[in-house]
Parts: sequence; structure tokens; C-alpha cells
Amino acid sequence: MTYATFNIQTDFRPPSRDLVRDIVARALEEDRAHHDVTSRALIPPGQHGHGQFLIKAAGVVCGLDAVEVAFELMSEDLDVEVLAGDGSHVEPGVVIAEVNGPLRAMLGAERVALNILQRLSGTATMTRRFTKAAAEGGRARIIDTRKTTPGLRDLERYAVRVGGGYNHRNTLEDGILIKDNHIAAGALRGLGIPELIEEARSRSPHTLRVEIEVTDAAGALLAIAANADVIMLDNMTIEEMRGVVESAPEGILFEASGGVNLQTVKDIAATGVDLISVGALTHSAPSLDISLDIEAR
Amino acid sequence: MTYATFNIQTDFRPPSRDLVRDIVARALEEDRAHHDVTSRALIPPGQHGHGQFLIKAAGVVCGLDAVEVAFELMSEDLDVEVLAGDGSHVEPGVVIAEVNGPLRAMLGAERVALNILQRLSGTATMTRRFTKAAAEGGRARIIDTRKTTPGLRDLERYAVRVGGGYNHRNTLEDGILIKDNHIAAGALRGLGIPELIEEARSRSPHTLRVEIEVTDAAGALLAIAANADVIMLDNMTIEEMRGVVESAPEGILFEASGGVNLQTVKDIAATGVDLISVGALTHSAPSLDISLDIEAR
Amino acid sequence: MTYATFNIQTDFRPPSRDLVRDIVARALEEDRAHHDVTSRALIPPGQHGHGQFLIKAAGVVCGLDAVEVAFELMSEDLDVEVLAGDGSHVEPGVVIAEVNGPLRAMLGAERVALNILQRLSGTATMTRRFTKAAAEGGRARIIDTRKTTPGLRDLERYAVRVGGGYNHRNTLEDGILIKDNHIAAGALRGLGIPELIEEARSRSPHTLRVEIEVTDAAGALLAIAANADVIMLDNMTIEEMRGVVESAPEGILFEASGGVNLQTVKDIAATGVDLISVGALTHSAPSLDISLDIEAR
Amino acid sequence: MTYATFNIQTDFRPPSRDLVRDIVARALEEDRAHHDVTSRALIPPGQHGHGQFLIKAAGVVCGLDAVEVAFELMSEDLDVEVLAGDGSHVEPGVVIAEVNGPLRAMLGAERVALNILQRLSGTATMTRRFTKAAAEGGRARIIDTRKTTPGLRDLERYAVRVGGGYNHRNTLEDGILIKDNHIAAGALRGLGIPELIEEARSRSPHTLRVEIEVTDAAGALLAIAANADVIMLDNMTIEEMRGVVESAPEGILFEASGGVNLQTVKDIAATGVDLISVGALTHSAPSLDISLDIEAR
Amino acid sequence: MTYATFNIQTDFRPPSRDLVRDIVARALEEDRAHHDVTSRALIPPGQHGHGQFLIKAAGVVCGLDAVEVAFELMSEDLDVEVLAGDGSHVEPGVVIAEVNGPLRAMLGAERVALNILQRLSGTATMTRRFTKAAAEGGRARIIDTRKTTPGLRDLERYAVRVGGGYNHRNTLEDGILIKDNHIAAGALRGLGIPELIEEARSRSPHTLRVEIEVTDAAGALLAIAANADVIMLDNMTIEEMRGVVESAPEGILFEASGGVNLQTVKDIAATGVDLISVGALTHSAPSLDISLDIEAR
Amino acid sequence: MTYATFNIQTDFRPPSRDLVRDIVARALEEDRAHHDVTSRALIPPGQHGHGQFLIKAAGVVCGLDAVEVAFELMSEDLDVEVLAGDGSHVEPGVVIAEVNGPLRAMLGAERVALNILQRLSGTATMTRRFTKAAAEGGRARIIDTRKTTPGLRDLERYAVRVGGGYNHRNTLEDGILIKDNHIAAGALRGLGIPELIEEARSRSPHTLRVEIEVTDAAGALLAIAANADVIMLDNMTIEEMRGVVESAPEGILFEASGGVNLQTVKDIAATGVDLISVGALTHSAPSLDISLDIEAR
Repeated sequence: MTYATFNIQTDFRPPSRDLVRDIVARALEEDRAHHDVTSRALIPPGQHGHGQFLIKAAGVVCGLDAVEVAFELMSEDLDVEVLAGDGSHVEPGVVIAEVNGPLRAMLGAERVALNILQRLSGTATMTRRFTKAAAEGGRARIIDTRKTTPGLRDLERYAVRVGGGYNHRNTLEDGILIKDNHIAAGALRGLGIPELIEEARSRSPHTLRVEIEVTDAAGALLAIAANADVIMLDNMTIEEMRGVVESAPEGILFEASGGVNLQTVKDIAATGVDLISVGALTHSAPSLDISLDIEAR
Repeated sequence: MTYATFNIQTDFRPPSRDLVRDIVARALEEDRAHHDVTSRALIPPGQHGHGQFLIKAAGVVCGLDAVEVAFELMSEDLDVEVLAGDGSHVEPGVVIAEVNGPLRAMLGAERVALNILQRLSGTATMTRRFTKAAAEGGRARIIDTRKTTPGLRDLERYAVRVGGGYNHRNTLEDGILIKDNHIAAGALRGLGIPELIEEARSRSPHTLRVEIEVTDAAGALLAIAANADVIMLDNMTIEEMRGVVESAPEGILFEASGGVNLQTVKDIAATGVDLISVGALTHSAPSLDISLDIEAR
Repeated sequence: MTYATFNIQTDFRPPSRDLVRDIVARALEEDRAHHDVTSRALIPPGQHGHGQFLIKAAGVVCGLDAVEVAFELMSEDLDVEVLAGDGSHVEPGVVIAEVNGPLRAMLGAERVALNILQRLSGTATMTRRFTKAAAEGGRARIIDTRKTTPGLRDLERYAVRVGGGYNHRNTLEDGILIKDNHIAAGALRGLGIPELIEEARSRSPHTLRVEIEVTDAAGALLAIAANADVIMLDNMTIEEMRGVVESAPEGILFEASGGVNLQTVKDIAATGVDLISVGALTHSAPSLDISLDIEAR
Repeated sequence: MTYATFNIQTDFRPPSRDLVRDIVARALEEDRAHHDVTSRALIPPGQHGHGQFLIKAAGVVCGLDAVEVAFELMSEDLDVEVLAGDGSHVEPGVVIAEVNGPLRAMLGAERVALNILQRLSGTATMTRRFTKAAAEGGRARIIDTRKTTPGLRDLERYAVRVGGGYNHRNTLEDGILIKDNHIAAGALRGLGIPELIEEARSRSPHTLRVEIEVTDAAGALLAIAANADVIMLDNMTIEEMRGVVESAPEGILFEASGGVNLQTVKDIAATGVDLISVGALTHSAPSLDISLDIEAR
Repeated sequence: MTYATFNIQTDFRPPSRDLVRDIVARALEEDRAHHDVTSRALIPPGQHGHGQFLIKAAGVVCGLDAVEVAFELMSEDLDVEVLAGDGSHVEPGVVIAEVNGPLRAMLGAERVALNILQRLSGTATMTRRFTKAAAEGGRARIIDTRKTTPGLRDLERYAVRVGGGYNHRNTLEDGILIKDNHIAAGALRGLGIPELIEEARSRSPHTLRVEIEVTDAAGALLAIAANADVIMLDNMTIEEMRGVVESAPEGILFEASGGVNLQTVKDIAATGVDLISVGALTHSAPSLDISLDIEAR
Repeated sequence: MTYATFNIQTDFRPPSRDLVRDIVARALEEDRAHHDVTSRALIPPGQHGHGQFLIKAAGVVCGLDAVEVAFELMSEDLDVEVLAGDGSHVEPGVVIAEVNGPLRAMLGAERVALNILQRLSGTATMTRRFTKAAAEGGRARIIDTRKTTPGLRDLERYAVRVGGGYNHRNTLEDGILIKDNHIAAGALRGLGIPELIEEARSRSPHTLRVEIEVTDAAGALLAIAANADVIMLDNMTIEEMRGVVESAPEGILFEASGGVNLQTVKDIAATGVDLISVGALTHSAPSLDISLDIEAR
């Protein structure tokens, strides 16, 4: 496996605008943004203002589309100017976007815009750290998992790409992954790893590769012998992983999983695996600190 | 302000089952749980299994309703038995719930059930830590903010209650909070803090209290003089906060905000404030490590 | 409590355009407006026309936004010109809006536009009558209740504001109101009015005031002693209400409820209560007579 | 036209339960019934109660299905017993339904249940008055119009049937009604009443009758000559209507419209018209006074 | 019954754009058009292209609105130019529409656009064949049935009109059709055809005609005697149908049904029936062969 | 590639009940099944009946789940007994299901139940014919395409499995298929088949195979050399296909496409291709003739 040579930084393949609109609209409704009693009481309809999105901690920006949409959905008269692209590394003090227009509507969307922007930037920032650390060890892709926030998977997978990572399968439908549970269930029907791989292949659309999870070298050897397309090495030691990868023929992909953190990822990459999956990118990334500073006019 | 005397541990006021069902159904659809190509290929429809939700890190459990709903929505034949209540403090190795029934459906819901359970338990766990630390300093409530995950606010606010915290306003509609932006906008119309408080009161439903944010002692004195119902002390020092609280008449509530972490919260509580708001409870709590161990039959 | 001094006639805080669009779209669908068999049979697609919204009974106009939206949703080629603002008092014979464009689409939206316009104008008209009558007696706000038409609450609350009234809480979430039922239920747990007020305060977001309903002077005195923020005097005589209000300390709000009509409201206002709630504004206001006179071209 | 001979009191053809559920669920959401801060603060989850729906003004009951659904949607543990059927004439003091179960959920649904029940009972009551008055004059059906509340048409049409009335077309799709606007538009294309009736017939599904509106005897004669199936006599005098009806051949239906009230309806019926349409049944019927009296346990 | 004299080719009464948008959006989502992994991997965001919709078999075009909407929903930058109107008869080799713009979005919508266009053109083509064949025998309308594709009824009814056919009732609500099942059910209550026709008339909106299905001449005579408005002759022979039609008085409509195909339709029309219903138009019309040929730039 | 050895006839992997419910509910609403004016007028609510689904043409049954759901959604009192499984081959005169219960509700759902059942059975029947014919020539899978009915893809893919066929990718997301358009677009960027295959691999989730479409032997050789996982041979002659397949190394899959019909499919299978895709299965299969014969009681 090698990597695209044309600059993917310019094409993170953002989620469709419709999807972003749907998520943002739901969030505005959840916050009753059109029923902001404070702003309705204190800001006359004609009063305008200017706001700046200000970075307060170093990181990677992600989610500016959602910011645009949030203000656009509140009022057609709000005008957002984006000053940095998703994927930009930013330092505290940098202004990444500005918004101008009716202040009442602007204040109604503030929290929703920030909630999405900060969360996605948090994921992009953590991903960037992992990709940098891994690159010191080898050429493995950092990939996400299905451990995402309910309702936000598409956005978070995008944030992973923005941070320099890659995506694993999106849903249970677009990838075959035979896990320990499937292996145990198969054993009860008298089927071993070779039979399961064969059955997965014969009963699924021919467009999907077959990946299988193993937890030790013995399992890996069985999977290799059975012509698995991809083998996930789960919670194995650095030495075990290196041994498996080195002994395998060309054309099989290896994914390392479990026990991955910023301290271990370099050594894992150095084993020669092709993919390293990191659940924390989407389930435990802290928000990036960003504020909206508004100035009335 | 004092606290309820009957045991609120037995009544965290959970979100409605309908809401939980709606969120879980959306998440199952997002994961295409009914289209799990792997399980459909490898698990015959009649094969049953048994699963255990196993705690892998110490913390506070939250979200068992969502677990029940996830399996219930996948198949009427899946049967969940909950062994611990939301709010239980658990140690690694404890089993908190079991599920029995058709294995194919069980595997389809696994990831969604865990994603919600781990996230809410993460928030409940962090909240418990803050409430314990604050209790050493004083009687202040730990409260959440509107910095929640889009689409999950009701669930996360519940997790905060489960962790021993309290809720701030839910939406922009059910609380008045005059922030610096409103004050700046008012100034341009020639209105000061007293006029804004009066205007907020006169133009809103009479059922809402008026809260105002100030950033120094001078602002606090103005708000006190203007009969604000609640005053948020934003990013003020321990000494400033103590001074303001001690000089204020009976009946005004004080909320500390900004710079709150597990190191500072005890001293903040000791200033005598009534409320301490912590955004990290919902925007940066790491997931609690929990797994579903499945055994085929 | 005093009232806003800048002209609120210019800012009734209308419902969001999205909400109006949602209600109107649903109504057009309910009327199968895009499947108007008569107009499709008799009006060629290219035939245009001109329509006038004509007032046929004196009253206060409300709902012109919905009129605009109804035609806009039927056809981008329909053009509405509004000649009067929501809140205008109008006499029979006045034209308040005109519409031009394809006649087939215009006829499809006619009934839906009128149904909403007439209903909201009916509520605004009745509210104006109550506010005028009350103003002769005192400075009390006329307020609405939650006795609204299912699905139209936001619009009807707006019509009340347009008619010069104020709003009570919007939903069960943005106001605390301890009613007789809560008091009876509390009694069974051994809790009296003071304990209930305390409990409501301790277990709710700190942003909400505590209102309690009483039915006689004795109850009112208990509530005053327990520091209720707002006291609803339900179905009490003029004399009882005056007695309670006069004996109360500063800072407590009183709401009169029950037995309010155009004959009694002046005297009720004269008792010194701050708020007078009138369910009929939204549950029994007759439609204002308005027609759409169309002229083909 | 004659009337059904088997007892239609037992079959008012109620709206589907799904539709009722949809409207009630939306109304509960609109009222944030699952977020009732007062009841959540003051009623423990285990406390049960008993409620009675008590008639406070004489009228015709309608909407008990919606009452059942409202409580059912709040909690599976709430149990409603209906003591009177839709269509019952009731006097003040009568209890028409009882509800038992968890008090917190019961209080959450109270307002929504009453809002629908009172509104539909209002329409049924007014319809009963019109059908009684009309029956003294002749055998004409009292029928509704499309002047219904947005979102509630099916329910209100049902209330009309419950009150003894009949329905006009439900939507623009299931009836042809050539109104003055269509006649004016046709004139511009050189088409008169005979040509319009012919065109309507030739360009619509053959399942629909052709009704035309006329405003004087001359128009009626033209429509009769052109074989209209139904002729609406709009705002004509008693004498004019009688003259038209008497001179018409067998088989044509006549609908009286405009100027219909409880004083005039008997004489209108006596003219021999077949149908009398009354917009006020659905646009201006006051709510019937009904309360829910709750007793905690 | 006669037919409209102004050219209906120019006014097929197309479905509302909203409905088309709804169906197309759902189809794009079903195809995950915004997640096209192939095009996202291989087509840079800036690459544009040109596409031509090319006819590959002779027929009648229908569905160009849906084509426009499909590309419009994928990207505002895609530009569709329609070269033929719905209803055009086309031969292989003809280009009926062109699309220009970003290639990635164009490829995402290709399949959905074609799926709808080919299906509706298939129905329009088959309808044209039936109307031509019937016209050789008599003046009967070719009409559709309710045997349509779930979710596409409005579009398919439109395709029937585009092919020169007419519509039967749209739904169970906008037409009365007493079928054999209703007759059998009535018999059990002691009601014959005359009583059923009377009951249908007395218990339905007066805007609907009464149609009844009969299967032999005896049934037809009963229905004629009972003044049925429309009589469906189901699966009767040519001779039987001719006999019934010729013996009937003026003013009753006859619909032939059953056993209708391109070989029999001419003779059926020659019997003098007014309407011939053909289920196959919507349940068994093969797709018209059309392709989208794309040229990258 | 080989085929599953345990009996897949017993596990066609049906669509989720939720999806079926969603489609059926939409269809019932489209047909206004709850507003059936005829049945409401003629069938008393208490009248019950018995219905039989009767096969009128030989074929393969598919869609019985939808039949169950349609009646279940109309009334809880309707009881369906299924007498044949999806996949059964049936001859005219066979009864495949019975329904008992309230006749009014039964008649309301009749058309919707049949519309889905007949359509899916049509697809299953045509698929069975293709699989039988292909089996005479070789071991190739008959597979569907994305040329499905908008909104019904999951159901139609199921019907293909029921008929003995297999599925291609479900959506644009779960399979990579490099078509002529992608090749042409790549050429403009200077990329040939090898580079495109590489790029597809590097920029997509690692779980997906790479399939490419070629139209002649030369293209096929290039794709083989570039290690494509799957090669689609589009509109090639029998001889060309045989030549390509025979010359290819082990492990590459070949899909035949274009010009496939019941006459040619045997010879195509005999070339040794692994997959034969047939668009007509879902875009042009005629409905299977089935009726519901109802008997009132």
C-alpha cells in the first residue's frame, strides 16, 4: 500500500452541506436558538455586531462549514468570512473567522457553532499528533474506528482526515471484519478460521475485502494461510507484531489495534504494520479552546 | 439555597424513553446495524449467545437505558438484564449488565450501545470527581453548561445529575443570562447594568430569574445594587469572589465560572459561591472503558 | 415590575420563519394544495391574477408572515405585498395585502393563508380588547396561558404579544408553577407550602422563579411567608385579591386567574395584581372575518 | 338525498389512532411534557394519583381518544377509563373519564389532553346546536367547510360528525368546486358557466361530481341548464333560495352558504336546500369547559 | 363525456417540485450519493465534465424534472439543459438533456436520475401505445389504476397523463368504488345493490360520484336501475359490454376493466365504454433504455 | 469463489422489520388507506371477513413480510397467517396467505399489500429464471445492479436473493467500481488504468476491493497487470470474455455485463465468468399476478 501523491490537503472530502445543515439545524432546535429570551429582551432587531472566532490553544482547525451553516440558518443577513481552512495549524491569538450582521441572531447561534467547531478541532488536533508520532516510526496510516459520537460520525471521520488520518469502514455494511465473537460463534458450528473466511467471501457482495481479527501469532498464521485480505493484530506486543508482519507474503494488509497511545505509536509503526487504529480520536479527544468575541455596533 | 433532603440518588429524572429511543435508532441507522454484512454472512439466524458488559476502569455508570433500548430495537428476542443502576460507582472487573438472545442482532447493536454507555459514564465519572472535590471546600453545586454534544444534551445533562451535579438552564429559552455581549450591546443604546436588568425583567415571562455575568468586583456591586437575581463571577480570583460573596445581601445567588479544574474547585467552593459551572463535564470528558464480552452458544 | 419604555410595537418578536414555514407547509399538504383538481382543470398554467386581502370586521391584524409564506411555498412566481403591519387596528373595507402571479397556485394557497391569518387576528383582536379594558383599572399585564391550539403555540403567543399582551411560560420546562395538585401530592408526603417552595427551588435550575397557586387569603399568606417569587390567586374575589396584594411586601408578583372576562378585568386590574391570565385569548377567540378577493387577468 | 338508517351514533368513523398519536405526540413535545420541571421537582417517581375529567358546562363530548393517547404516550403505567362515548350530551358535574397511575406523568399530559378534548367538544357542541335548529326547518345536512385549524382538520371533521353534522370535501383533491374566481378566470378565456362545467368534467377523475357556486337566481338557472351536479347558493335570500330549489329538476343538490347562524338556519333549511355549510363550526367554536381534578395518593 | 379542446399537451399538470425533490433526495440518500467512494478517490474536486442523456430505444420521454432536481441537489454548480419536453416521442440517438459541471457530483447523481427517468418514460411509452390502439376503436379514455409503485404514485400518474392517458381516483379518499367485496359484505346485512348505492351516497361527502363494479349484464342492469353514476364492467366479453352500454340511458359512465392488452383494447373501445383501465401501465411497464454519456474535461 | 454449503434457502437475510414498516406506512398514507370513503360508508366497524391471497400465474413468492405489516398497521385486530415462505415456487390456484378480522381495515390495506407483494414476486420470479438458465452454462452468480426502484432498493435486493441471485454493492459507498467515465477523467490528468487502480486503493477504506470496467480484451489485460481485484467485462462477445477469463491468473473475479437475457445467459456463464449482472431484474420485471379474494362474514 502506498499513498496518494497529489496533495490531499486540498481535498479532505468534506461531508455534504445537507448533512451539516441537518446536524446544525437539530442542534439549534435543541438549544431553542430561535427562542433566546435574553437576546430577544435586550437586543433590538435592528442592532448589528461583529464577531471573531479566536483561537485560545494551539491545534488544528476543523468544522468551519458548520460555523457558516449555523449563522446562515439563523439569519440570511448574517455574513461569515472564513480566514483559515480546515486543517490549518493555529496558535493562540489567531482569528480564524469573522461574522457580521444582526446581533440577536448572531448570539442565538454562537454556542451551537462553537460546540461543533471545538469538538471537531479537538479530534483533528489529536489525530495530527498521532500521525506525526507514527511517521517517526514508519509509513503506517493512522485510522479511526466506529467508536464515534452518535449522530456525528460523518463529521468526526472528516475531522480525522483533516488531521492527516484515514478512515476505517464507515458502517457495518461497508466492510467485513471477522472478530473474536464471530470466530467463537463459528467454532460452535464446527467452522475454523479458513472456513469462516471462505464463508464471508461467498455470502457477501464481491466488492468487499475480508478482514479478520487475531490476538496472537498462531491466529495470524492461520489467517495468512487462509488468504485473508486484511489481518487485525489486536493487543499484541511489538515483537509479536513485527514477527507476523515480516513472515507474511506480499499483499496482505496488517492493522494494529489496542494499547495505542502517543508514547507507543512510533514503535508500533516501526513494526511494519500498514494501519494503526485509534479509538480515542473520536471517543476521548478534548475540545479545542476557541471563543467567539462579539463587539456590538 | 439548600439541597433536597430525600434521597435524590433514587431519582435522577432520566430522559424520556422516547428520546432515548430516537437517539439510539438514529445511531443504529448511522451504523447500518441492520445491514451488518459480517454477522449476516457468518451467524445463522437461529444462533444465540450471551454477552456481558464488563467494566475496565473505575468510574460511575450512566446510560443503561440506552443499552436496553439498543438491543430492544435490534430484536424483540434480545433480553437485557441490568445488574447495576445508573450512578453506581464501579471498579474494573465488575459486570453491569447481561444480554441474551440471537447473536446476529446482538452484534449489530454492540457498538452503538457501548458508544453511548461509555460516553455518558465518562461524563458521570468526571462530575463525581468534581462534586467530591468541591464538597471539601463548601456547599456549592457543581453545574453543567450548554457546551454539550450536539444532539445529546438531554442525555449529558442526565449524566451530570447521575454524577451528583446539577443543571444550569437547558436552552436559551428557559433562563435569562445577560452576558458581556449583551452589556456591550446595551451600552451602545445608552443602557447600563441597571437598565438592562430592568429591561430583561419587563420583557420576559415573569417565571424566569435574571442572571448577569460580571468580570470584576465593580460589576458585581452594580449588579447587586440593581437587584439581579443571580450573578455569574467570570474568571475572577478566589479573593475577589470571596469579597463579593461576603459583601452581598441575602438572597442573591453567585455562580463561579472559568478556570475551574480539579485542583481549584475546592478553593472556589470555599469562597461561599452557590454554583460552580464546569464546561469540561460535557465537552472534554474521556469515555469510560467498558467492553461487551460475547460468548456464542 | 414596570414596562419597557422603548416602543415594543416595533418588535413583537415574531416566530422564526422556519417555524412558520413548517406549519404552513404542513397545512398546505393537509389541504392537498398542490392537487387542487378544480383549479388544475380550469386555470391554464400561464393565467395570472391579482388578489386582495380585505378586512370585513374591525380588529387587529396578525399573521401576515404566514400569508407570505403560503404563497411563496406554492410558487416562486407569486408575489405578495403587505400593506399593513401585524398589530395594525383595521376597519372593514381596508386592504391589508395584495398578491400577484399565477392564478392556479394562488387559489391553491388561499384557504390555508386565510385560515392562519383569521385565527391569529382573532386572538390579537381579543387580546387588544382585554388590554384596553384592563388599562382602565390598573397597570397589570394581560398574559396568555398554555391553553393553546396544539401545534400553533408559538404563533398564538405571538398573536397575544401583537395584541398588546404578554406571555406566561411557554412550556412546562421554562417556568415553575406549583398548582393545587402539587400541593395535595406534597401533603401526602408530609410537606406543606414552605417545604414545597424550598424543594422546587433546590431541585430545579437556578434560573427559574418559583410560582405557586393559592385559592384563598390564607394560602396566599403562607406563600408570602415562604418567600414565593410569584403567587397566583385563583378564582378569588376582588376584595380578597386586593387584601392580599396590599398586605404583601415589595418584590412578590401576583397573578389573577379565573373568572376573567371583559366585564371583570378592569376591577381585577384595579386590585393591584401584576398579571392577569386569560385562557380565552387562545382557546375561544373567534376568527376575524377576512376574505381574499381575486381578479383574473 | 336521504340519510343512513342504521344508527350512525355508533360509527362516527374516528380518525386513525396513528394520526391521533402523531398530533398528540407533537403537542406533548411542544409543551415539553417530558421536561415538566415542577412535577419533576415535587413528585417522586413512585407517587401515584387518580384524576377525573369533570364537565363544567353543558355540551357534547368529543376527543376521548386523544385523552387516552396523551396519557399512554406519557407512561405505559397510566390507565385511562372512559365513562362516556364521543357524542354523549353531558351536563355540568358529570365525570366522563378517569385516569390512574404515576402522578408525575399524569400532570405532564394534563394540559395537552384538555386542550384537544375541550376544543373538539366545542366544535361538536356547536354542531349539535346547528343540527337541532336546522331539523326544525327541514331535512338539510349541516356540513363543515375547509376553514379548519391548520393541522387538526381530520379531528375537527370528526367532531362535526360527532355533533350530528356531515362533511364537505376534505381537501382540494377530493371535490370539484367551481367558485366565483374560477368563473371570472374562465370569462377571460371566453368560457361561460356551461363550458366551465364541461371542462371540469373532462379534465378530472370521473369519480368526482361537479359543484359550482352562484350568487343569484340567474346564475343558478345557468348552472341547472348546464347539468351541474351540485349548486352552492352563496349569500342569497331565503326567498331566492326557495325559488331556485323549487324550480329545479330532480337530482341536483343545493348547498346554502353564507349568513348562516343559529337564528337563520331553521328558515334556510325550510327552503328545501340539501346542505347548509357553516364555517364557524371549526373556525369560531369556543372550547367546552372541562377540567381534570387530580387527587394524589 | 367529451374531452378538453384546448391542447392538453402543454399542461400535463406535473407533480409539485417539492414532491419531486423529496423523492429524489430520498433516492440519493438511499444510494449514498454523497459518499461515492470511487469518484471521491479518483475525481479531484475541481474537475468538470459534460454529460448527455442519450435515447437508446424509441418511446415517450417523461421525468425530466427529476433529472434537473437530482443534479441540483448534488451541487449548485451542476447545470442541466433540457432539450426535449416531457411527452416528446423520441427515437434512438436523440439527446434529450445535457449536464455540465463538477464531475464528481455529476457521477454521484447519474444512477438516481436515470432510474427515475427510465421508469417514468417506460410508463409514458406504454400508455401512448394503449391510447393509440384504443383510438382506432372509439373515444374511450385510457385510465390508470391504484396498482402503482409504493412511493411513486404521483409521478406515475403524471407519466400516464404524459402518455395521453387519464387518471382514475388518486386515493381511497377521492373516489367511491363499490367492489365485489363491498357487495358481498352488504348481502350479509341484507342489503342489495340499490341499498348500497343509496348508503354510499348518504354517508359520503356530496362531492363524490358513486361507482360500482359488476361482472355481468344482470348486475349492470341492477346498477343502472339504482342510478349508479359510474359502472365498472369487470372481465366481461366484448358482446356483453356492448349490450350493456347500448341499453343504458344517457348520463351513466362505463369503465371496462380486466383482460385489457394491446390486442384487445381497440375492440373494447369500440363497444362504446367511456373508460378503459389498464393496471400494467404502472405495474409492469419495462424501463425505457436511456444512458448518460459523460465526457471529462 | 465457491458458494455456501449450508442451505441459504432458509436465510435470505430479509430487510429489517422497521424498514418494511416505514415503506408500508408511507404507501398506506399515499393511498389514504385510513380514509377509505367507500368502506367507511358501507362496512360497519364490527363486520369481520376472511381473505385469501391467491396465485394466478406461476412464479416465486416474495414479500410476505410486507403483507403482514400492511394489515398490522391498519388494525391490531387483523390476523395474517402465512402459508408459504418467501422463495416458494407456486402455481396458479395456490393460496399463500390468509387474513382474518375487521373487513373495513382489511379492504383499506388490500391494494398496498398486493402492490408490494406482486412487485417483489415479479423480481424473484425473473431472477429464478436467470439463475436456472445460467446454471446450465456454468457456476456464475446472477447479481443485481443499482438500477432499482427509488425507495425500494433494500426490498428489491432481498427479492433477488430470494430468487436465488446475489447482490452487487448496495450503494456508492460500499464498493469501488472504476467505470469508463472515471477512466476518461483520469486520462485527462495523465493517469492510466494502473495509476487509477493504485489511487483508488490508496484513498479508500482498506476494507473495499477495487473493481474496474473494461470493454475489450486490451483493457482487461491492463487491469489484470495492475492487480485489479475484480474486472467487469462490459458488452464483450462470448469469445472475448472466454479468452480473457482463461488467460487470467487465479484470484481475479470477472463480472459479465450488458446484453444479458434469458437466451444469452447460459453461454455467458459457460465462459467461466464469476458474476453476471442483470439490470432487468429490478428495472423491468413484470408484476406477478396475485389477488386477494375476500369473503365477508
